[in-house]
Amino acid sequence: MTAKPATRNARNLVLGVAQLGPIARSETRSEVVQRLLSLMHEAHSKGVQLIAYPELALTTFFPRWFFEDTAELDSFYETEMPSKETQILFDTARDLGIGFHLGYAELTSQGRRFNAAILVERDGTVVCKFRKVHIPGHEEHEPHRPFQHLERRYFEESPEGFKVWDAFGGKVGVAICNDRRWPETYRVMGLQGVELILIGYNTPTHYAPDRGQNPLQAFHNHLVMQSGAYQNGTWVAGIAKGGFEEGSELLAQSCIIAPSGQLVAQAVTTGDELVVAEINLEMCRNYKETLFDFNRYRRPEAYGIITQQKGVE
Amino acid sequence: MTAKPATRNARNLVLGVAQLGPIARSETRSEVVQRLLSLMHEAHSKGVQLIAYPELALTTFFPRWFFEDTAELDSFYETEMPSKETQILFDTARDLGIGFHLGYAELTSQGRRFNAAILVERDGTVVCKFRKVHIPGHEEHEPHRPFQHLERRYFEESPEGFKVWDAFGGKVGVAICNDRRWPETYRVMGLQGVELILIGYNTPTHYAPDRGQNPLQAFHNHLVMQSGAYQNGTWVAGIAKGGFEEGSELLAQSCIIAPSGQLVAQAVTTGDELVVAEINLEMCRNYKETLFDFNRYRRPEAYGIITQQKGVE
Repeated sequence: MTAKPATRNARNLVLGVAQLGPIARSETRSEVVQRLLSLMHEAHSKGVQLIAYPELALTTFFPRWFFEDTAELDSFYETEMPSKETQILFDTARDLGIGFHLGYAELTSQGRRFNAAILVERDGTVVCKFRKVHIPGHEEHEPHRPFQHLERRYFEESPEGFKVWDAFGGKVGVAICNDRRWPETYRVMGLQGVELILIGYNTPTHYAPDRGQNPLQAFHNHLVMQSGAYQNGTWVAGIAKGGFEEGSELLAQSCIIAPSGQLVAQAVTTGDELVVAEINLEMCRNYKETLFDFNRYRRPEAYGIITQQKGVE
Repeated sequence: MTAKPATRNARNLVLGVAQLGPIARSETRSEVVQRLLSLMHEAHSKGVQLIAYPELALTTFFPRWFFEDTAELDSFYETEMPSKETQILFDTARDLGIGFHLGYAELTSQGRRFNAAILVERDGTVVCKFRKVHIPGHEEHEPHRPFQHLERRYFEESPEGFKVWDAFGGKVGVAICNDRRWPETYRVMGLQGVELILIGYNTPTHYAPDRGQNPLQAFHNHLVMQSGAYQNGTWVAGIAKGGFEEGSELLAQSCIIAPSGQLVAQAVTTGDELVVAEINLEMCRNYKETLFDFNRYRRPEAYGIITQQKGVE
């Protein structure tokens, strides 16, 4: 059963951000799912109605390696969801009456590869499958890097873009990792009235193309999510993988951000950690109906090149 | 003469942000210009090549009052620039070899009213006149407010939008006050390769439509400029009016922000104060050519509604 729904404001939502520590390459799906279940039970005991897991939550962050062997690469993807190993997560969630968000690598029956996330309601209904829009990194093996970032080799860009769904008593959107650095991500959902954006991420703290950015990773992570929240009057949840994973350090810093841009909850470890906050979706109106009343103040006739051109001209 | 141009990297610019304290309603243009000149001489002594003054730098922030008398309203506008009283500013700047940015209220010969800013090169050439795109506040007198914010009554929205000009050894853009809260402002200039955005502002620390935002004004001010800088790999300078002006408190917090999003210089008073930093325009490439290589990573086909619709649909 859900925690005291009758006594709670219908526009309040108890949100659990389930940060994951490192996942070793040798860990099986079933071992990882046990970690997810443990966090789910903790979340349920704390009254959480929606638990969010990170991007690519079922495996290690495999784009750090170059694979010549397709079978080896394929081993990191899911060809169905629920899969045999994740079925218990879906069953347990429905039994507990808890919704969840789960990121994973998707391999379609047509052989297409996406960096995906699924959102499941408290009754087990699948709300949506989202696919990452902005794919970072590079396409070709770059042997000089200490770690590869081959997302552009291993994933297609989403053909569907950003949508917003009626779920959990509000308007919910999903983005994944690098999507959060682009203001367009938040704006496209903001123009659909989004009230909560869930963003899973795996962010290495080293950035090979410009190491000067390394010490700023935590600052940049929060900066983009806080400004995206404020400028669109929406809650934002950032759900990280953290810690040293196969020799690569991942930024943790999972957080829940209010429509004011304020951090209201934050992970303090780099491991498996549940961060909980009761969020009031009504608070979005404080911004959407005043300073950021889009219909009154925006000037789309002045924004043309944002959609007319891709790069600098 | 300019300060040691021969020994300085051609892509470095010594920038001076000239924050202004309160301007009383009773102060004459000539009295204000004397304050501007004082800051200009200080700037020149410190090797500044470009000094930036705030929005509506020649008068008090008059949209806080409702004027029924058009002649009284007109007294706050400039019908020509240089005007009789500002000519000395132009002459002194050219003599010193210092460029400047100046915000003022513009009343055209056709009777149109704009919240404008002019950018002048070191040799006296007028680089551009920019007009504010996003006009905040309200159109009608709202007597319940302690102060009005009648910008939407007193100014038209710019028909020209955001442009970028070759000046001061780089690509320079201008925005004004409320423009800085909209990510589209930075992006439209980012897509034109902007390397420095000058943003003058008058921001009351009270926000009548939602007082909960009052204590967050300083946070929001820096949040939007820091994210706009980072997400477009550009320097941003915020130039404030500060202090208690005719009973209304104005946010100071003038600053210079790097393409990394980092604050590199900040005003520490709420009065007339010059903030100086030598900025390296080359640093923009660290972001524009890596993480924010627009031509490689942006997805304009997914951004359609940003320009297709104004408000939430």
